[in-house]
Formats: sequence, C-alpha cells, structure tokens
Amino acid sequence: MQINRLTQQIQFIIEIDKLKLILRQTLLTDGSRQENSAEHSWHLALMAIVLAEYAPSGVDQLRALKMLLIHDLVEIDAGDTFCYDVQANENKAAKEELAALRLFGLLPVDQADEMRSLWQEFEARKTPTAKFAAALDRIQPLLHNQQTQGGTWRIHGITGDKVMKRIAPVETGAPELWFFIQQLIEDCVAAGYLQETAAK
Amino acid sequence: MQINRLTQQIQFIIEIDKLKLILRQTLLTDGSRQENSAEHSWHLALMAIVLAEYAPSGVDQLRALKMLLIHDLVEIDAGDTFCYDVQANENKAAKEELAALRLFGLLPVDQADEMRSLWQEFEARKTPTAKFAAALDRIQPLLHNQQTQGGTWRIHGITGDKVMKRIAPVETGAPELWFFIQQLIEDCVAAGYLQETAAK
Repeated sequence: MQINRLTQQIQFIIEIDKLKLILRQTLLTDGSRQENSAEHSWHLALMAIVLAEYAPSGVDQLRALKMLLIHDLVEIDAGDTFCYDVQANENKAAKEELAALRLFGLLPVDQADEMRSLWQEFEARKTPTAKFAAALDRIQPLLHNQQTQGGTWRIHGITGDKVMKRIAPVETGAPELWFFIQQLIEDCVAAGYLQETAAK
Repeated sequence: MQINRLTQQIQFIIEIDKLKLILRQTLLTDGSRQENSAEHSWHLALMAIVLAEYAPSGVDQLRALKMLLIHDLVEIDAGDTFCYDVQANENKAAKEELAALRLFGLLPVDQADEMRSLWQEFEARKTPTAKFAAALDRIQPLLHNQQTQGGTWRIHGITGDKVMKRIAPVETGAPELWFFIQQLIEDCVAAGYLQETAAK
C-alpha cells in the first residue's frame, strides 16, 4: 500500500463532506427545511436499489449507484443551480467542469479519471445507465413537491408545463415508470399543488 | 408492472426521507452542525467506492454499497444511539429489530426480506462484506473528530482507550487501513484532540 495514495484518498473523503452544506431548492417531505445535496444523493442511490426492477436493459446497477453518489459533487465549488432558473443555468456547465477538475483531481490520477468519466457520462445522458440515473434525479423532487403540497413549485410559481418538460427524461430513462409519473403530476394538478399552465 | 407493488416502493422511498431528520453526535468537518444519518450513509457509500482497493478478498462491492445505504434506516423509528452511551445501548437491538420489521415491511415481501437480511448481515459483522462496511462506519466519525479538533470526543469527554475499543473492527474488517488508522489516533492524541486514557 502506498501511504501517499491513501493520503490523497482520505483528503478527498474529507473534502466531500462539504456537499452536506450545499442546499437545494427542494424541501424535505415534512417541509421543515431545504434538502442538501449529500442526503439527496443518498436518497437517489436508495431509489436505484428499490426501483432496480424498472431499469431498462443495459443499465449497470453498480455504475448507476456510483454515478448517483458522485453526480452532485461538483456543487461543492459550483453551487446548486435551481433547474428552473434560466439565467443561472447559462454558465453552469463551465463552472461544473472546473469543479470536476479540482475535486476529482484530489484523488490519485486513475481514480480521478474514473470519477470524471462517470460524472461526464451522467451529464451527457446518452447511455442507458446515465438515462436511468437522470430519471431518478427527476422523480425524487417530484415526490417531495407532492408531499409538501406543491413545495418549491408554489414558492417559485412553477407551472405544470415546465414540470412536464423537466420530467421528460423519465420517458426514455425509465419508461416503465412513465405512466405512474404522469399520473402523479395529474394528481398534483387536480389537488391544486401545481398550476396547469402559466397564468396569462 | 403491478401498480400496487410500485405504490409500496414509492411509499417506502417517501418514508425513508425521515432519516434526514435523525441527528448523530458527529459534527460536520467544519463544526457547524451535527451530521444526520442520511448524509452519513452517503459519505460511507462514497468511502466504499474510493477505498475499494483496500477491501479484503470476499468483499462484494455492490452488496457493501447497499448495506451502507440502508444500515441506519432503523434509526427512523429507533433514533440514533450514541456509541459511547452504555445505558442507551442496552435495548438498542430490540428497538432496531422492531424498526426493521416496520420499515422494510413497507416494501413488497421479496424486497422486505432482502433488505432485512442485508441489515441483519451488517449488524452481525460476520461476512467480509459486513466487516468491511462496519470498518468504514468506524473510520468516518474518526476523520470528523480529527477535523474538528476533537469534536464529539471533547464534548463528551471520550478518551483514547474507548476510541481504540470502538475502532477495533477496522483491524479485521479493513486490515490494510489499520496502520493508517492507528497513526491517525496517535496524531490526535499528540495534537491534544484526544485524551490518552480516562482521568483518574
């Protein structure tokens, strides 16, 4: 064992603790506070386990878990960007690319390359594994918004058309869950948690 | 796809959000607040990825990840028990067994059985996978206490002999990390973060 290699790995493990301080717009299901990106990543990883049977063929479960556990790490430097904030999303990719270089760069080179490649695969959403992981990442806040009677949709005046656009990757990433998700959104509209379209 | 089965799974996914409200004694590395059990589980899962090369033969990485992601779920009902609180640990097992029955019981029977069995394997610490997972669960708070100049050790007056006893499972669960961990504890004692033995 090379002590230097282990020291780099431990330094990375200490550094990523900062993800627990990155707050998302999503509220916890009891509405008590905003969710942070570390506990969000944990929730998604558990969803990948519980909902594994709905993963399309070609999805590698271990790879999906790794992807979900690391997918938000870049937020330690780049911050969380609210998905419905058009302006903030303009330079998101560049900021996150820099963050990936620094953060994964704390690891020994082989692991840094592996992590960056995993993260890039997630961002590109082209492989079945990345598409499935992205679908889970879209479904989870939906459940939170339903549980909090509209949660961040109400706070930010997000309408059904925007939510439908945001949730679209579920149709290809986890087609077996698509009917259920559409129904869930319809239920939220019917319950008054979500306005169907933007007010004219 | 059976809608009823999916409904049970979604109900479980919503229920486990409560783990984000369970506070541990451990402080975040910046000392700003206590860590919760969901973000702690995320941290351990990422440690299992980054430190995978030190896993002894017989450790199944996917199983270790699943185990670490679910190992604290019982705390939703049973609460977090501080590892150095002897009295509170007396009826911990019984409370957690009941919690496992209720929580995993929200899932379809096959998944409930699988999850309970994973959790029991973790608790029993007999298989290489469970021993490795337990080792990581011991190492992580150590890193936090080092980063917070003694953190919960200082708050609760925990001494080096107790920490050595607590950390002992690392020697068999992740022998390749044992030297590093012993060194880390010695460094903490030398830095004055940890009192060597109980004051007479």
